[in-house]
Amino acid sequence: MAEKKNEDHTMFVGSKPFMNYVTGVVMQFTTQNAKEVVVKARGKFISRAVDISEVTSKRFLENTIEVKDIKIDSEEFTNKEGKQVRVSTIEITLAKK
Amino acid sequence: MAEKKNEDHTMFVGSKPFMNYVTGVVMQFTTQNAKEVVVKARGKFISRAVDISEVTSKRFLENTIEVKDIKIDSEEFTNKEGKQVRVSTIEITLAKK
Repeated sequence: MAEKKNEDHTMFVGSKPFMNYVTGVVMQFTTQNAKEVVVKARGKFISRAVDISEVTSKRFLENTIEVKDIKIDSEEFTNKEGKQVRVSTIEITLAKK
Repeated sequence: MAEKKNEDHTMFVGSKPFMNYVTGVVMQFTTQNAKEVVVKARGKFISRAVDISEVTSKRFLENTIEVKDIKIDSEEFTNKEGKQVRVSTIEITLAKK
């Protein structure tokens, strides 16, 4: 149950329209009353995750939420061609003030 | 003097080849003996800044340096067409362990 709730308050950023993610995060804080939402992304979507976090915290939910924590990491794996590849990840925790 | 030294230990990430930045950061820690290097980027280059920080700390200077701090921010300004534009920024502080 706790795990499911946690899953609800995560936003994985990909190639959907930008405002889908912003609206998704805002909804979690407002209609779902989340205390924290974790915005996650990999590779080239990391820049978008930062944009989404900034637009949410500085424009849509100004004075209400803040960036609480930022973690970066990377995973190394072997791709289909047998080549070693490293992909970076980011997790931005937005929280109610 | 202190200001100049500080400037030396900053790496602005743009569109140059990836390894230029990695080598630049590694050199600051090794030949210039920096205690900290701040990797900075704006907009779409944020993902690269994370990649560069990860490759430097996990591969080239493994067990020697770590990600000490990460800050994100954004600046709103009016572009040439008179449109309000927001650009995100990141500052990743790498430090000797």
